[in-house]
Amino acid sequence: MHTELCDRFGIKYPIFVFTPSEKVAAAVSRAGGMGVLGCVRFNDADDLEAVLQWMDENTEGKPYGVDIVMPAKIPTEGTAVDINKLIPQEHRDFIAKTLADLGVPPLPEDEAKNEGVLGWLHSVARSHVEVALKHPIKLIANALGSPPKDVIDQAHEHGVPVAALAGSAKHAQRHVENGVDIVVAQGHEAGGHTGEIGSVVLWPEIVDALDGKAPVLAAGGIGTGRQVAAALALGASGVWMGSAFLTSAEYDLGHREPGGTSTIQDALLRASSSDTVRRKIYTGKPARLLKTKWTDAWDAEGAPDPLPMPLQNILVSEAHQRMNESDNPDTVAMPVGQIVGRMNEIRPVADIIAELVDGFESASRKLDTIRDS
Amino acid sequence: MHTELCDRFGIKYPIFVFTPSEKVAAAVSRAGGMGVLGCVRFNDADDLEAVLQWMDENTEGKPYGVDIVMPAKIPTEGTAVDINKLIPQEHRDFIAKTLADLGVPPLPEDEAKNEGVLGWLHSVARSHVEVALKHPIKLIANALGSPPKDVIDQAHEHGVPVAALAGSAKHAQRHVENGVDIVVAQGHEAGGHTGEIGSVVLWPEIVDALDGKAPVLAAGGIGTGRQVAAALALGASGVWMGSAFLTSAEYDLGHREPGGTSTIQDALLRASSSDTVRRKIYTGKPARLLKTKWTDAWDAEGAPDPLPMPLQNILVSEAHQRMNESDNPDTVAMPVGQIVGRMNEIRPVADIIAELVDGFESASRKLDTIRDS
Repeated sequence: MHTELCDRFGIKYPIFVFTPSEKVAAAVSRAGGMGVLGCVRFNDADDLEAVLQWMDENTEGKPYGVDIVMPAKIPTEGTAVDINKLIPQEHRDFIAKTLADLGVPPLPEDEAKNEGVLGWLHSVARSHVEVALKHPIKLIANALGSPPKDVIDQAHEHGVPVAALAGSAKHAQRHVENGVDIVVAQGHEAGGHTGEIGSVVLWPEIVDALDGKAPVLAAGGIGTGRQVAAALALGASGVWMGSAFLTSAEYDLGHREPGGTSTIQDALLRASSSDTVRRKIYTGKPARLLKTKWTDAWDAEGAPDPLPMPLQNILVSEAHQRMNESDNPDTVAMPVGQIVGRMNEIRPVADIIAELVDGFESASRKLDTIRDS
Repeated sequence: MHTELCDRFGIKYPIFVFTPSEKVAAAVSRAGGMGVLGCVRFNDADDLEAVLQWMDENTEGKPYGVDIVMPAKIPTEGTAVDINKLIPQEHRDFIAKTLADLGVPPLPEDEAKNEGVLGWLHSVARSHVEVALKHPIKLIANALGSPPKDVIDQAHEHGVPVAALAGSAKHAQRHVENGVDIVVAQGHEAGGHTGEIGSVVLWPEIVDALDGKAPVLAAGGIGTGRQVAAALALGASGVWMGSAFLTSAEYDLGHREPGGTSTIQDALLRASSSDTVRRKIYTGKPARLLKTKWTDAWDAEGAPDPLPMPLQNILVSEAHQRMNESDNPDTVAMPVGQIVGRMNEIRPVADIIAELVDGFESASRKLDTIRDS
């Protein structure tokens, strides 16, 4: 499975994997893909620095990238304390009542409360870029479209290409005009921030709109080699995945019994493709999430409207922490795509990648038979 | 492009096209696909009989099928007059005000008012089946899932296989248990009645769930040969299309200047893939429609909730007729999928089919290169 992106990045397979876990990212790179580490969870640049040092030591010199979350428009800035003042009491009361109704335990006394993800404040995302560019990263991806021009220029000065997510052809074209090198075409099926247009329509539409000006990575609904074949048949130069690696053996975030699965993984393993919702309750922008009692509570009559970014995530961050640290899979808060219906076992990253390659090859041979018979 | 369905149905390509136009259906069958004529617009069985006689004379002995709309549960029965009594005055007032606000002209005095689609009443759908089985049809498809068991048995006694649309693996399995022979896996991208799960996730999920018990036709988002390749790579045995043929040269429904495009086609030609909405306002069940000033009016504050099937379509039928007979493309009422963004020119049916075949072959050869290089 070889496209021009393999040569450009020095990778064996054109499989790009976004993940918040450095263990997963490193394993993807070692297995021949491109691990892309999500930085948004690092409020403190020193924490990111330590994790990237770990990446350098555990990727055997293979390429890896980082993913930042930098909105095109500069949102409210300030510390968590400043921003906290902007959150209405009605919303705080709703959170407290919902957690009580759902029986979510408090955090252990020795655990620091999560002050909320500040990673999409421009100041924090810029600190991620500063730190990352001191490491041998091969890609900076932005989950919210084009980063500001000076950030793109800064990456290019270091020889690092920039990728940006797009949910429409218009946005994809704008990204390339802004200097973005690679477009991630993210269909409606995807986990996290996602648009309205389904992958099978969106992918070729963006490929054609860019007309060779930038390669396209297909995202949204990919979990098997057959789906990789579909993406490449539709004109993509590679795939961008995320959800399917949340149930990898290496994924270690959230509460987990030693040697077992985590509460988050338990929730993902039993979900079907119908068990996601696309809501503004995670960040303030539409994002696909696992449907749980938590998302049901926000859908119920009387629930408040979500706040704009970045306030909504500040509002819910401690609640997310409490739910994901509990042992109850009914109440986790987790972005995931519709491919969750196929995430039914815990597998090592290398096995997932091997199936993607084998499944792609089988599917393409099947098309040969259909074509030539 | 040859699958087992080609042998089973005696068709050249595994391309099944649902269309309300007999002109399009016949042209599809003549071009090597399977034209499937939508019966729901025929309130009078005699009208359907006349059109099927025309089909027999214009398909050169090639196979064709019919599509009925028969809900699994028996809805309210009765004539349009009986059913009219169940429609609240608030809804009638909203329609009248909206048509006035949008400047929709009245029908010409010599044109009969459309009394609303009764085709999904069981009694009417059964009359469609009775009439169709007197013709050499090769397929009966049901747009709302499994038809009742006696209807399936009746088709089988005539040697006619039954297809049913499904938007989830659970529904697909139930259809096959009920005796359905072929499942149409209809993804979120599709026009008309459609579910939540995107095609790239849904198609292989249904293929795997049925495990060879019935072949799967992929639907939702297919308009080019690349998308046919994606569908077959994902395990489908053929494709089921609809929207892409609304802008065929043969499509002749709705107001149309002689030799020109119709008002509906004008609206479709200029729409992008973002210009659809999925709403209950057409039939009472969620269906993807072209976004127009009419759908905007139903989305505005103060609009009433849609009525259940079959009342909603009875309510809006004359309004649809008035809008689609006008010359204003801003106010048409038309089910269409997200592939509308690629429907940018009027082409003969044979040209559309030829591109599907050529595009499939190119895409599969591209995968060979990616696999073997």
